[in-house]
Amino acid sequence: MMNKNTSLRVRLPVLVLVLEVILLGLYAGFVTYDDNANAKFQNNETKPMENTVYRDYPFFADVQVMIFIGFGCLLAFMRMYGFSGMVFNFLTATFAVQWAVIVQGFFQFYHDDGKIHLGVVNLIYAEFACAVVLISMGAVLGKTSPVQLLVMAFLEVPIFSVTEWAVLKYIRINDAGGSILIHLFACYFGLGATFVLYRPSLNEGHPKEITSYSSDMLSVLGTLFLWVFWPSFNSALTLKGDDQHRAILHTFIGLSSSTMTAFALSAVFNKRGKLTMADIQNVTLAGGVTVGASVDMMISPVAAYALGAMGCTACFFGYRYLTPFLARRLRIQDQCGIHNLHGLTGLISSTAGICAILLASEETYGPSMWEIFTHRAPPEGDPRLAELRLLIPGLKAGLGRSANEQALYQVAAIFTTIAAAFIGGILTGIVMKLPNLASPSDESCFDDELFFDVPSDFEGIALLTPQSSSGDKSSKCPDDTTKV
Amino acid sequence: MMNKNTSLRVRLPVLVLVLEVILLGLYAGFVTYDDNANAKFQNNETKPMENTVYRDYPFFADVQVMIFIGFGCLLAFMRMYGFSGMVFNFLTATFAVQWAVIVQGFFQFYHDDGKIHLGVVNLIYAEFACAVVLISMGAVLGKTSPVQLLVMAFLEVPIFSVTEWAVLKYIRINDAGGSILIHLFACYFGLGATFVLYRPSLNEGHPKEITSYSSDMLSVLGTLFLWVFWPSFNSALTLKGDDQHRAILHTFIGLSSSTMTAFALSAVFNKRGKLTMADIQNVTLAGGVTVGASVDMMISPVAAYALGAMGCTACFFGYRYLTPFLARRLRIQDQCGIHNLHGLTGLISSTAGICAILLASEETYGPSMWEIFTHRAPPEGDPRLAELRLLIPGLKAGLGRSANEQALYQVAAIFTTIAAAFIGGILTGIVMKLPNLASPSDESCFDDELFFDVPSDFEGIALLTPQSSSGDKSSKCPDDTTKV
Amino acid sequence: MMNKNTSLRVRLPVLVLVLEVILLGLYAGFVTYDDNANAKFQNNETKPMENTVYRDYPFFADVQVMIFIGFGCLLAFMRMYGFSGMVFNFLTATFAVQWAVIVQGFFQFYHDDGKIHLGVVNLIYAEFACAVVLISMGAVLGKTSPVQLLVMAFLEVPIFSVTEWAVLKYIRINDAGGSILIHLFACYFGLGATFVLYRPSLNEGHPKEITSYSSDMLSVLGTLFLWVFWPSFNSALTLKGDDQHRAILHTFIGLSSSTMTAFALSAVFNKRGKLTMADIQNVTLAGGVTVGASVDMMISPVAAYALGAMGCTACFFGYRYLTPFLARRLRIQDQCGIHNLHGLTGLISSTAGICAILLASEETYGPSMWEIFTHRAPPEGDPRLAELRLLIPGLKAGLGRSANEQALYQVAAIFTTIAAAFIGGILTGIVMKLPNLASPSDESCFDDELFFDVPSDFEGIALLTPQSSSGDKSSKCPDDTTKV
Repeated sequence: MMNKNTSLRVRLPVLVLVLEVILLGLYAGFVTYDDNANAKFQNNETKPMENTVYRDYPFFADVQVMIFIGFGCLLAFMRMYGFSGMVFNFLTATFAVQWAVIVQGFFQFYHDDGKIHLGVVNLIYAEFACAVVLISMGAVLGKTSPVQLLVMAFLEVPIFSVTEWAVLKYIRINDAGGSILIHLFACYFGLGATFVLYRPSLNEGHPKEITSYSSDMLSVLGTLFLWVFWPSFNSALTLKGDDQHRAILHTFIGLSSSTMTAFALSAVFNKRGKLTMADIQNVTLAGGVTVGASVDMMISPVAAYALGAMGCTACFFGYRYLTPFLARRLRIQDQCGIHNLHGLTGLISSTAGICAILLASEETYGPSMWEIFTHRAPPEGDPRLAELRLLIPGLKAGLGRSANEQALYQVAAIFTTIAAAFIGGILTGIVMKLPNLASPSDESCFDDELFFDVPSDFEGIALLTPQSSSGDKSSKCPDDTTKV
Repeated sequence: MMNKNTSLRVRLPVLVLVLEVILLGLYAGFVTYDDNANAKFQNNETKPMENTVYRDYPFFADVQVMIFIGFGCLLAFMRMYGFSGMVFNFLTATFAVQWAVIVQGFFQFYHDDGKIHLGVVNLIYAEFACAVVLISMGAVLGKTSPVQLLVMAFLEVPIFSVTEWAVLKYIRINDAGGSILIHLFACYFGLGATFVLYRPSLNEGHPKEITSYSSDMLSVLGTLFLWVFWPSFNSALTLKGDDQHRAILHTFIGLSSSTMTAFALSAVFNKRGKLTMADIQNVTLAGGVTVGASVDMMISPVAAYALGAMGCTACFFGYRYLTPFLARRLRIQDQCGIHNLHGLTGLISSTAGICAILLASEETYGPSMWEIFTHRAPPEGDPRLAELRLLIPGLKAGLGRSANEQALYQVAAIFTTIAAAFIGGILTGIVMKLPNLASPSDESCFDDELFFDVPSDFEGIALLTPQSSSGDKSSKCPDDTTKV
Repeated sequence: MMNKNTSLRVRLPVLVLVLEVILLGLYAGFVTYDDNANAKFQNNETKPMENTVYRDYPFFADVQVMIFIGFGCLLAFMRMYGFSGMVFNFLTATFAVQWAVIVQGFFQFYHDDGKIHLGVVNLIYAEFACAVVLISMGAVLGKTSPVQLLVMAFLEVPIFSVTEWAVLKYIRINDAGGSILIHLFACYFGLGATFVLYRPSLNEGHPKEITSYSSDMLSVLGTLFLWVFWPSFNSALTLKGDDQHRAILHTFIGLSSSTMTAFALSAVFNKRGKLTMADIQNVTLAGGVTVGASVDMMISPVAAYALGAMGCTACFFGYRYLTPFLARRLRIQDQCGIHNLHGLTGLISSTAGICAILLASEETYGPSMWEIFTHRAPPEGDPRLAELRLLIPGLKAGLGRSANEQALYQVAAIFTTIAAAFIGGILTGIVMKLPNLASPSDESCFDDELFFDVPSDFEGIALLTPQSSSGDKSSKCPDDTTKV
């Protein structure tokens, strides 16, 4: 019963120790406080309530709830894999955030004094990198050990950070809600990794790949936490003021329309006219991704509503037709269907973002157009910049791009991101496949007992499975356990 | 087993599609951004951190947690109705908020340009309308289909919005915590609807109308979420500053005293001297409603304490004696006992509000009395207004009402609201009773299997029922499953 | 089966009634609004958004979630004691906060007008006193009645408040995160009480002292809520601005490193190389306590990282070796292992705080050193004070202590706090042992049925116990149920 090769007794502690020593060394050598957290830089004219912590911390806290509680509950949707879903999410997220603080620090918060300057704003960026890892993890959930997940986080964070930095610095795009850099990257990275980790036997279905009444409840609770705080996620890094205000409105409206649409689709495509919990746990959230790329623009509330419904529809049919197709034909086993919830919606969102860029005009935006579409602002030296600075003092110089040019750069960013993600995912998958990383056997997938001391009632929960599940409801609904 | 008449396959999608087309059309035709969300209206003197979003969003987010997570968990208190409780709450709330954004928009946020101006503040108002629907839903929980619940929301939101608008515009009252407009309206609307939907057989008790160990835990978790964020609910729409500060204090104190009182009453009226979970799930919350109507006034902390204890006592005895009486004698089956938690407490709160108005004096309030009791301020043209404006620049002109006059208007508002709500509820109940709305049969009430694909362990949960519940504990405690 | 002596029918209502009358009387006689909540003190120059409520309420709300939801879920970790864990936490916390508002009010918020001035800031202080009670409660969980717990809260709050007041007023220390005053006090108070309440038979293990799959899930959910909001707890009462910013950063980093360390230690010390849920539920949180005493100082991020790992290690070995030792040799049965999570970590934290004080220099802190280490600032009349006030207008006069002197005062505070707590705990334990407080018999410990009407499936949950637990997994892992 107990597979010796999957003991965590040496593997996990050694890996964690190595990672902690690396983190400790880098913290010691390179991390100091940023100006808003450094006691020395506060003088007698400092107004403490204007510290950036008060702008950033509420959004940071909301995203924390999403990462640790929302994702944790959502990933606990399998009957015998609740401990693993919630607890591996906890471990992976904790490490990913710390690691991203360091890696992103070198790229984005590195100062001339040779130090990474740390404030709560870095933590928000790091949480977005962490969200990327957790989304990718959805593709391989249930068939990986915590050792493999830490290895994945260790590799994905730098690959993501380089991509993010290159796209933001060289291609320069609008992507306030992270549809391109977060969702598309995470999706195609995860697909790359799961492609390498392909397990033919799992295509036949696995007897433990089922839910229970209480795991379904917990998972929908996770959905609700993600749903409630998603406006904070999409708006955490927009410009302050009206931009953040719009981002909150659009996300809320988009989520609402995708939720209603998900209920309708769930009922109409169910042969017995009932609702399927997997749809409610996943498809309802599609709108949050779909509004992402244009979330801070003046797209009008009705566009947010339409985007939510469109993203939801694509996501729903993806779960129904594309996920089985990917698994059978392309050897891509997307356990939680991240390609539906993050890939298809991300593509729609990116397209919508391009449309919004092409349609943007000073008539709609007023002078603040040059702040939102910062790369379209006139470059330094251009006389029009001086004119605009009369209207908006302190306006940053841009690149003088036209709308069409910016649209092309957006397209370039989409393809660059997908390519970098997929290649990175494949390489990471190859590393994850190395021996000695405690990879579970096919039979031990989706089973908490492999990595946890389980309480004495676990056997009873498990016992209900063989007899009732094989010929019963859950096997008739193949997407019952395909989620995120 | 499977009742053909309750298939959602056509009914739910068609209804949702119609509602979405209506919403999409109205969004397209009538909704634009308000000044704080519109890029065009920000100029070079705009300080982004002074955008109203930073005042409103934290309270909006707290109320979101209450609506989607607090209510959702609380309504999942039945053993075989957890999916339905949590998920129908999700669907109904999502639609109700969007619908209220539009309907309230026409009444309260309509501008000369023929548009509804949308900001996060509208969403707070809409969530209050949504709370009204969810409270009413408590009266009919378990014996209605999601189609019927959407129909209810579709009708209740406009009836509520008209009542709210008429009372605020023509009667003009003080009701910061919404005891009259939210709780009394929601309660009597729900009672009206459930009166029409009367099912004689349910008065005998239903074998599935029981809780389980885990459903009781989840439900009390919902109570705790409501408890923790209730101060945000009661203070979200008060004046900013000291008014909001007092609203938070009063709500917290009122909830605390009602919680302690609920434990005492639960023990003393239990024959075996034990605690009843249904009391802890519901009666503890009575204080939040009871302080509502006077929540922003200078009632003194001790009054909040006393109000919490009084409201809790009324609520407790309501569950014990009034709910069974209403069901048997008046054919009003109040499933979750909303008349106790929202009706009786709302009446006490309204009375307390009137007392607070009669006792208010400039000695206690200082000049800001004319801001809190805005209808008592001198009308435009009155020389006293000019005087007061020396103390409070920008004071709005009032109606010059005396305290006694204002008290009478409060009484008028109470009766108007109750009458409008009850009549509206009856009419809505008649519509909900129309055929083809997938209304469950008596036997299928309180059963997730009717509307959901359930996991394979559901049968096991259900099987525990017939043998043990009929003669056992739960049937001895008739209010075990009477809540919200 | 039913033990007549533990009926709550008279005992609980009488005690609650007495406590409510006391609270009501003291509220009536002594509590009024503070300047920020009093309508009278707002004049025409008051900017409502500068009201202190907007600084304090977000942190208050976060701590509320920790107290009622985080603690509540965490304490529900036993299979047949979920109702009790969550609901007794609710009752005890509710009373403790109200009682602390009054008692701390007399010591810290009493004004010349003979009144306690109440604002949201008092509630934050009161919640810290409440956290003290809940931590102590962890030592006696499962073997006490709600009557005993209320008696404990009734006595602990004043003993804590006197100690807090004496230490802050006479010894004067730095302890922003409350490692000394909150965690050490709570721990040694709880140990004192449980020492008196010693039950020899429980040292042999109790058949009901086990977890279930769903109770373990709920408990880890509680851990996640505590984890996510702990930065708010540690920073709620620091100085505003960069101090609060650092407190948030340090707490987050400390928690992250203790979480990773906990996973490593859990795997390496498990004979079968698996993870133990009790470690993940408790040991992960050690970092939050360990950074407490120096949380607002310029200790550098790497120090926070190292402290988290150290605290976690001490906590882990404490659970493994010290808790059994205390129970067998010293008759101290520490049910949830509070000595590990709050005592050992509190001692490390206090020591780290002393080091940080000794190493503090104006070079690192700039002039704001005299604000953070306020007792080291020059006393009134010292010419250096006038100099410093040129840099920091309004700097408070200090006591002119040297770093070494301050370090000695910190040591004095540690010993004073531990002594006061332990003696207070013993006295309180003696009172709790008085007859007629519904203390459960040894067999009825850890059993919801003693104090609750339980649903009909409870018996089924309980039935799984005798046969499978005695010889099974859970008994091989003695710390499986030793937590908090």
